[in-house]
Amino acid sequence: MAGTAASIDLGAGRQPTASPPKRPNLGDFLAPRSIAIVGASADPATIRGRLLDYLLQRNYAGALYLVSPSQPEIRGRKTYPTLASIGEPIDLVLIATRADVTLSIVEECARIGARFAICYSSGFAEAGEEGEAAQRRLGEIAAETGLRICGPNTAGFFNVRDEIPATFARNVDESRAAIASGRTGAGTVTVVAQSGGLGYAMSDRCRAEHGLDVNFVISTGNEADLGTLDFVDHVIEDEGTKAILLLVEALKDTARLPVIAAHALAAGKPIIVSKFGRTEAGSRAINSHAGRLTGSSDAYDAVFARYGLLSTDDENEMADLAAAFSLFPLPQGNRVAIMTTSGGAGVWMADACEAAGLAVPILDDATQAELAKYVPSYGATHNPVDLTAQVTVNPLGGAAESPLVASLAALHDSDGIDAVILIANMSDGNVLAREQAGLSALAARLRKPVLLYSHAPASPKSLQLAQEIGLSVFASTRRVARTLGAMVRYAETRGRIAAATQPAPAPALPAADVAALAGGLSEYKAKALLARHGLQGGSDVLAHSVDDAVAAARVIAAPVALKIQSDAIQHKTEVGGVALGLEGDDAVRAAYEQMMASVTAKRPDAALDGILVQKMLKPGTEFALGIVRDPDFGAMMMAGLGGVYIEVLKDVMIEPLPVRRDTALAMLKRLQAWPVLDGARGRAPLDVEALTAAMEQLSLLVEGSGDAVREIDLNPVFVYPKGEGIAIADALVVGRDEPSIEGAH
Amino acid sequence: MAGTAASIDLGAGRQPTASPPKRPNLGDFLAPRSIAIVGASADPATIRGRLLDYLLQRNYAGALYLVSPSQPEIRGRKTYPTLASIGEPIDLVLIATRADVTLSIVEECARIGARFAICYSSGFAEAGEEGEAAQRRLGEIAAETGLRICGPNTAGFFNVRDEIPATFARNVDESRAAIASGRTGAGTVTVVAQSGGLGYAMSDRCRAEHGLDVNFVISTGNEADLGTLDFVDHVIEDEGTKAILLLVEALKDTARLPVIAAHALAAGKPIIVSKFGRTEAGSRAINSHAGRLTGSSDAYDAVFARYGLLSTDDENEMADLAAAFSLFPLPQGNRVAIMTTSGGAGVWMADACEAAGLAVPILDDATQAELAKYVPSYGATHNPVDLTAQVTVNPLGGAAESPLVASLAALHDSDGIDAVILIANMSDGNVLAREQAGLSALAARLRKPVLLYSHAPASPKSLQLAQEIGLSVFASTRRVARTLGAMVRYAETRGRIAAATQPAPAPALPAADVAALAGGLSEYKAKALLARHGLQGGSDVLAHSVDDAVAAARVIAAPVALKIQSDAIQHKTEVGGVALGLEGDDAVRAAYEQMMASVTAKRPDAALDGILVQKMLKPGTEFALGIVRDPDFGAMMMAGLGGVYIEVLKDVMIEPLPVRRDTALAMLKRLQAWPVLDGARGRAPLDVEALTAAMEQLSLLVEGSGDAVREIDLNPVFVYPKGEGIAIADALVVGRDEPSIEGAH
Repeated sequence: MAGTAASIDLGAGRQPTASPPKRPNLGDFLAPRSIAIVGASADPATIRGRLLDYLLQRNYAGALYLVSPSQPEIRGRKTYPTLASIGEPIDLVLIATRADVTLSIVEECARIGARFAICYSSGFAEAGEEGEAAQRRLGEIAAETGLRICGPNTAGFFNVRDEIPATFARNVDESRAAIASGRTGAGTVTVVAQSGGLGYAMSDRCRAEHGLDVNFVISTGNEADLGTLDFVDHVIEDEGTKAILLLVEALKDTARLPVIAAHALAAGKPIIVSKFGRTEAGSRAINSHAGRLTGSSDAYDAVFARYGLLSTDDENEMADLAAAFSLFPLPQGNRVAIMTTSGGAGVWMADACEAAGLAVPILDDATQAELAKYVPSYGATHNPVDLTAQVTVNPLGGAAESPLVASLAALHDSDGIDAVILIANMSDGNVLAREQAGLSALAARLRKPVLLYSHAPASPKSLQLAQEIGLSVFASTRRVARTLGAMVRYAETRGRIAAATQPAPAPALPAADVAALAGGLSEYKAKALLARHGLQGGSDVLAHSVDDAVAAARVIAAPVALKIQSDAIQHKTEVGGVALGLEGDDAVRAAYEQMMASVTAKRPDAALDGILVQKMLKPGTEFALGIVRDPDFGAMMMAGLGGVYIEVLKDVMIEPLPVRRDTALAMLKRLQAWPVLDGARGRAPLDVEALTAAMEQLSLLVEGSGDAVREIDLNPVFVYPKGEGIAIADALVVGRDEPSIEGAH
Repeated sequence: MAGTAASIDLGAGRQPTASPPKRPNLGDFLAPRSIAIVGASADPATIRGRLLDYLLQRNYAGALYLVSPSQPEIRGRKTYPTLASIGEPIDLVLIATRADVTLSIVEECARIGARFAICYSSGFAEAGEEGEAAQRRLGEIAAETGLRICGPNTAGFFNVRDEIPATFARNVDESRAAIASGRTGAGTVTVVAQSGGLGYAMSDRCRAEHGLDVNFVISTGNEADLGTLDFVDHVIEDEGTKAILLLVEALKDTARLPVIAAHALAAGKPIIVSKFGRTEAGSRAINSHAGRLTGSSDAYDAVFARYGLLSTDDENEMADLAAAFSLFPLPQGNRVAIMTTSGGAGVWMADACEAAGLAVPILDDATQAELAKYVPSYGATHNPVDLTAQVTVNPLGGAAESPLVASLAALHDSDGIDAVILIANMSDGNVLAREQAGLSALAARLRKPVLLYSHAPASPKSLQLAQEIGLSVFASTRRVARTLGAMVRYAETRGRIAAATQPAPAPALPAADVAALAGGLSEYKAKALLARHGLQGGSDVLAHSVDDAVAAARVIAAPVALKIQSDAIQHKTEVGGVALGLEGDDAVRAAYEQMMASVTAKRPDAALDGILVQKMLKPGTEFALGIVRDPDFGAMMMAGLGGVYIEVLKDVMIEPLPVRRDTALAMLKRLQAWPVLDGARGRAPLDVEALTAAMEQLSLLVEGSGDAVREIDLNPVFVYPKGEGIAIADALVVGRDEPSIEGAH
């Protein structure tokens, strides 16, 4: 692969240059026409026995072969001593044996031409070096033979729609109540999880909290071969799936993410993801249960935001979003109307909405006039609309229309409103039962989200009625508001990404520059290279003698700095290699001679290029700009105001490459310190245009270099008032072939 | 009242100097021996009818009198035409009439010597000026006659423990399932709510989510007389109540809060509060449903934090905290052990715990060795402890002890752990049913919190079993972690407040100073007064002539500033009244003359005190320190680093007076910018000692002045490196008798 940084650029629509992974037909994996179970058992108390039991419970309609060298029959079915003895084509082999025999069975699968295998056993990468080697071997077998493998250390999958359970997860047991009832039978959600326990739990949660049916639950386990993104790529095309829930610890093949995410956005299939292992304790736990190391959570968050995945960290929020995207059209804006039968609950909801980035505007006169027909005089029509409890207890006598439904419809139909929240006491089913017909009619013509909330906990009857109506009850004030907030953000992101022009690929750097970058550069050379690529610093002259230096300082005609230049010297100040603020021939001469003496004494080994004479730059607002390399996502740009902003407030953004001016501006606007750049509160606005241009140049440079750059640190970059540009005061480039350097210069 | 600022000082234990409100015996209100219903009705579909219906449902054991001028009997009971005709002592009158006759009934209540009345009707302060006047009159009747009034615009109360419903809230209807079952019958929670709808809903929620029984639900409505704090004050003494839940829009009698909060902390009764109406839309809604204006949410948050109330903004969190405080001892620290049957769920929980400020430490060797007896080899013992799903499916065959219970007990008994979380799949009741005996034995000897969580949604059977065991299932990862985080914070707060010495009351200022402050002060006078009270600025001399000024500048022997001094001039720069950085006689002379000419031309009306000659202060880190006055809580100190910290980052803390050095230091440490003061990352630490001393002096000054000060703004205060002190560069004092000033100086 040509380096992750360049690969991320695939978002631009190019094909990968390195051998692309074959795209497996996972439809046949999830709905196999034939299944063999190796290590089948008649005892449903065991994992192996449950695999068979669940397939029998669901009357699996394909060919089912049981492989057992010792038992002639299992649960009245004939067995085969080996896979090879079956003699029929097999789509999917379920391997329920111990880790130490798994490899040989997988090899047999490949030999007989089986298309897919699931390795359930643990004892691989999470169990130490030997397991890691075995897991690597699984991946190799897949690559060599074309057999595609799910696992090891997986709980398999449940194709709920076709009722095909290839899993031992007890959640799919038909005898369990959790699985019993669904909204309509037509599933809308697919769950892909690296943790089987969490994946099946999430599926249950979607059903329990919102009556949602799940199409597929897929546990990917240690991902020796098939990974999360393979399954995501597949289910984007699944017509019934309206939302994809991901539970991930660390993604592999991250270079594919931009393309897959763009595909999902275009298809209108939101990907709702929780990335865990964000903390030290969490990562420790992942390493012991899945043998996986997780990359920086900040990088994951930046990449998810960039490519339009919805990032969450809460199982309730995932279920709520799954429901919202399953049931509602996207909101066109952030203006919410709240209708309530409890004044207090309306207040609380208004607070929560504003905290979630939503607006709760005063309704226009026409809408208020319409509402006034139904709202009692001691209620309120502005927003929140207070119907008062009276309306639900004693609907206006003899009214042809239900005031609740009529008011709700008025809000739904108002052009000034993008989403509606109805709050009522649904602690029994009375309200929804009485309003069922009216609400169902509204739900059938929904043009924007309409979320229900009950301030007293909703009764099971109310939950059921809401589902029959085609709506859903959300379980708390905060959850209602956060769900709508996330929908609004998703709609905005989708619009933004759809409107964005794809960045043109960066031109490749000249081979000499790439070689120089990979080997690492002294400050002088680094700045010269940066300047050649549009990243200007001050006026720098490399002096090879004291007279050179004095002459250069005279030309500059301002205070200068001297800096020793040597590829061998990273920490200049430690060897006496920096002198600042020198004015006049004598000062320059003295500093030059002292520097040469000090450096040659301390580093007699170092080959010196000379001493750099720099104009002391006019101080500006300090900015730090750089490239860092994330283990999972490759090169990422880092930007933030210098000094206390970065050091004390950690106010810094990262963003995957490519970065162009629009992306750069968006990064800057996300900084807490954006008002400093923007000139808030009477300050002079700074030259943001020059800064974003530099950010684009930096991105192009790194993209164009392949993976030659390990790290770049431009710090400080002085940003001057608008129109006056920027100046790179100090530059550090760490090449691919150099060790990573901490705290250099 | 002697000013809210001074009154807040009652936290120090003094009695209020103004007439203290009588402390009503609310025990007799909540458990009256006799009740009269004015406007009783036989129709349970009406509010009036429900009051009677619910009392009959619960077989109210006291004397019950129905007052109706028109109906001779209601539901087979004799009625009385008037309250006076009853002729027996009446503890509580329920007034279910319309707003316009409520006043006359209340007057009759007072006349016949009834002790308490509840006014249910709306149509008071929330309904405009006339209603506001009527509500004020209710308060006056209470003050004049001793009749204590709850409401108007209230849903009354439900004394659940004694089964006395004085409410029309349908939540108390015996026919409704929500009220049917409780944990043990012995309630542990009291709910006090300004919104009846939310109060009763919260009571239902405590029961629905954790099987908690509530002792009292009290809806205070518009609080013409009895307010939230009256009821809090009462229920602190209620033995059964272990947690008090408050739902408030705005508190009245805020001066009592410190004493009541201290009482609650001493009694170990956590007050869990949600303050709503935090946003513009929320406040708008409150004003229309309760006629209440809400103060600054920041002030509420600061006051709640100061006095140890637990602030939340979520109904789930309130119910979770109610359960945690009802069931568990307080944790002694923040170290959590997580035990899980799903690796992924353990990772997620570890992330959530660290995000909530908890530690998930690696367990000590002894505990890990003990756990190793029960944890399979492919599990983990470090923390999170991964028991793996196998343990719950097939408990180790023939083991005398359940591995789950034995492991949990080992964690509970570890000295290195302060709280334990058990994660298992409780989507059926099997796990808890099998472990019931062992878990019950552990629950009976609980020394620290043990929270249960099910990654698949817990079944009703599991919830029920958990309650029987004496534990509870918390509904999400985040909710588990946030509950424990809040418990840890509460325990810390309690310890901190218990350990703190009560601040000595501030000595009263000399009468002349109080008079000067109240009238407002020019900068010169303000700085002189501040200096007399230990708040030093630079060396200032007031010059009355140009020669005075030149002489003063010579003595200072450094660059000086000139500033016009006049009580009539607030915006000095606008009249040409400020000149900075003057050096040498000529410069001082020219600036003086120009200033006099400019000021007298622009403000011929203003009486001038002279021109202040100030040494130009050595620049230091800019700090802003001040006093602001909150409508609900009176004088509060405001502190933050100047410049971008306040203007861009809004990094500023407020704190109610009194502020002493320890409180001041705690304020500074809460600033985002604290590392700047503290000398993080190689910076020189600043003189925090001098700064906190100044904050204490400022607090003493304001406390000692009664309510003479409206606002003080010391900005900038230069803070110098440790040992070098601070200097107040600019000072603005706005007195009680002056208009509030925006953006002065």
